[in-house]
Amino acid sequence: MTSSNQQAEAAKADLVLYIDLNAIRKNYKILQAKAAPAECAACVKANAYGLGLEQVAPALADAGCKTFFVAHVTEGEALRALVNSARIYVLHGVWSGNEQRFFDHKLTPVLNSMSQVDTWSAFGRDNGTKVEAAVHIDSGMTRLGLDEQDIAALEADPNRLEGLSLVHIMSHLSCGDEPDNPMNQAQLKRFQSLRRKLPAAPASLAASAGIFLGSDYHIDLVRAGIALYGGRPTSDGTNPMAEAVRARARILQVRDVDSPRAVGYGAAHKVIEPARIATISVGYADGYARSLGSLGRACIEGITAPVVGRVSMDLVTLDVSAVPREKVVEGNFADIIGGGANLDDVAQQAGTISYELLTRLGHRYHRIYMGAGS
Amino acid sequence: MTSSNQQAEAAKADLVLYIDLNAIRKNYKILQAKAAPAECAACVKANAYGLGLEQVAPALADAGCKTFFVAHVTEGEALRALVNSARIYVLHGVWSGNEQRFFDHKLTPVLNSMSQVDTWSAFGRDNGTKVEAAVHIDSGMTRLGLDEQDIAALEADPNRLEGLSLVHIMSHLSCGDEPDNPMNQAQLKRFQSLRRKLPAAPASLAASAGIFLGSDYHIDLVRAGIALYGGRPTSDGTNPMAEAVRARARILQVRDVDSPRAVGYGAAHKVIEPARIATISVGYADGYARSLGSLGRACIEGITAPVVGRVSMDLVTLDVSAVPREKVVEGNFADIIGGGANLDDVAQQAGTISYELLTRLGHRYHRIYMGAGS
Repeated sequence: MTSSNQQAEAAKADLVLYIDLNAIRKNYKILQAKAAPAECAACVKANAYGLGLEQVAPALADAGCKTFFVAHVTEGEALRALVNSARIYVLHGVWSGNEQRFFDHKLTPVLNSMSQVDTWSAFGRDNGTKVEAAVHIDSGMTRLGLDEQDIAALEADPNRLEGLSLVHIMSHLSCGDEPDNPMNQAQLKRFQSLRRKLPAAPASLAASAGIFLGSDYHIDLVRAGIALYGGRPTSDGTNPMAEAVRARARILQVRDVDSPRAVGYGAAHKVIEPARIATISVGYADGYARSLGSLGRACIEGITAPVVGRVSMDLVTLDVSAVPREKVVEGNFADIIGGGANLDDVAQQAGTISYELLTRLGHRYHRIYMGAGS
Repeated sequence: MTSSNQQAEAAKADLVLYIDLNAIRKNYKILQAKAAPAECAACVKANAYGLGLEQVAPALADAGCKTFFVAHVTEGEALRALVNSARIYVLHGVWSGNEQRFFDHKLTPVLNSMSQVDTWSAFGRDNGTKVEAAVHIDSGMTRLGLDEQDIAALEADPNRLEGLSLVHIMSHLSCGDEPDNPMNQAQLKRFQSLRRKLPAAPASLAASAGIFLGSDYHIDLVRAGIALYGGRPTSDGTNPMAEAVRARARILQVRDVDSPRAVGYGAAHKVIEPARIATISVGYADGYARSLGSLGRACIEGITAPVVGRVSMDLVTLDVSAVPREKVVEGNFADIIGGGANLDDVAQQAGTISYELLTRLGHRYHRIYMGAGS
């Protein structure tokens, strides 16, 4: 998997993040096959969910991805330098004063409000052209997008769209990860009805979870995100995606605790029975959430080692009593996310979702990309 | 505070982080005065608690700081390029294969275990010199450091220290933020007793909270961290530190919700009474913790606006019904951390501490440093 050169580099780091670009490519192909004949786009906002836009976007392009979504215009600008011919949608849209950046980098804004529609349309008109745009319809999430009245206003005054070439219409599901939630059907119905009041354009509704809701939800395009990166796309069932991330932290110290004593900040954990404690080189500054204190489970050589006491900024203490002594060696590594410590399980232990764990992975990891050359 | 050039840059960003280097300098001087005659060192690990090592370290040096602490050797290497003559301690210590990096960058490892003592001592001996070292004593936190038996072993065989020049002895308080906790006195007593069994060297025990426990805890040096960056150093009482951080997110959309409907993922929030909802350009990928869903409180023009529904990766929805209509304008900004949204209050709303909020501030903020030129 890793070259000897990569292994030598990892041996010098305190904290290593392995990112498997082959797994990401494989996941893209699984999702594309599932969504076909709809197109599968990739959501690479937040630095490709924390995994590195610079490496992940070209790998996805290599796997056949032609359409990308980011949130911020700055992300779009960075992405344009990596994927020259792809279409790039910017989910947060455009505002007055920022139009030229979209134009210069061939970024397509997703227009979320009437003021964004008017701003971008005016820019096209003022430049004597029609600028490409996506429109976001709020089908029930009340987060971003045009609502019924906005769409009625556009029907009543089609001139407001005059400077635009509408290339996509989208909406977003609130409860896509709950297949039985009636909200999904209601949003689909509402979206299909509202979008017909706009000029015809290809449409999308499904993100990763929505891909698994069946072909009604695929429409013309799906927007894959967490599933590309190996996260479980639905709230129950097995995970069909390949693991793409493995984070490992160095074991800094191992000690036998024979007499009762407290561990960590706030003296929150008390060792009563004799135990072995290992301190590893990761903390909440590295995205190992503070909420994992006394709840997280790391893994050493395939054996689970629970977090004891609070998570510090740079350190975590594990109870390694159940791990054979010869396997817990100062200088070796423990799996903290991925490997023996399943991403979705760790997220659940932290009281959150895999998306937050990934996007919080910090800058101190030595990052090793596998499959970068293929 | 900000130049017109900086203001023009901020006007183009979705998300802005103002970092006040003058406030950080001022905080350093407050803490130095409080700790005197002990020296005040600065803890700048985790990219100076998320605020930017490159800008913060020179500002602290400018304020008189001569000693810095980081966690990882890579952080020490980056810091050495910024503060040429300062002493830099690396808290995670040294391990076999990494010694030359410490030597080349004049980094002083904090030796936390007997294997680290032996590794660094051997390196000094093999090079026919004595290399500078700090020793970490575990005074009761059971996280890192030499314990009673380790110190007895060094007393019995002083040759193990032969390649070292011991320049500092340190320990760390578990409950320093709780002035009445008897653990503090117990750790102080244990530390003073154990360190006398090692060769004499200046010592430190107090971090930010410990500075406020009184002069017994200051010994020769204190290690200021969170208080430099404006966080409240103790768990109760008023905060004597100047605010150094203000994070602001753009208002992307404002809407009136007149009929009952759900907001955000999982349809977790239901609007019953007529309300106004604003969606802002920040999410958990930017360190606005997902745990702030339905609990966080942002601020628009000095008026509190509670988070409603779940925090998304890139978006947050606020109930702005209480904010006068003319103050909630699409394109304007809301305070999310600092300003009207006090750092420690937001941390408490998120169920965590200011340290975690700061170290999780992501890479999408447009960062503006105030006081950089002085």
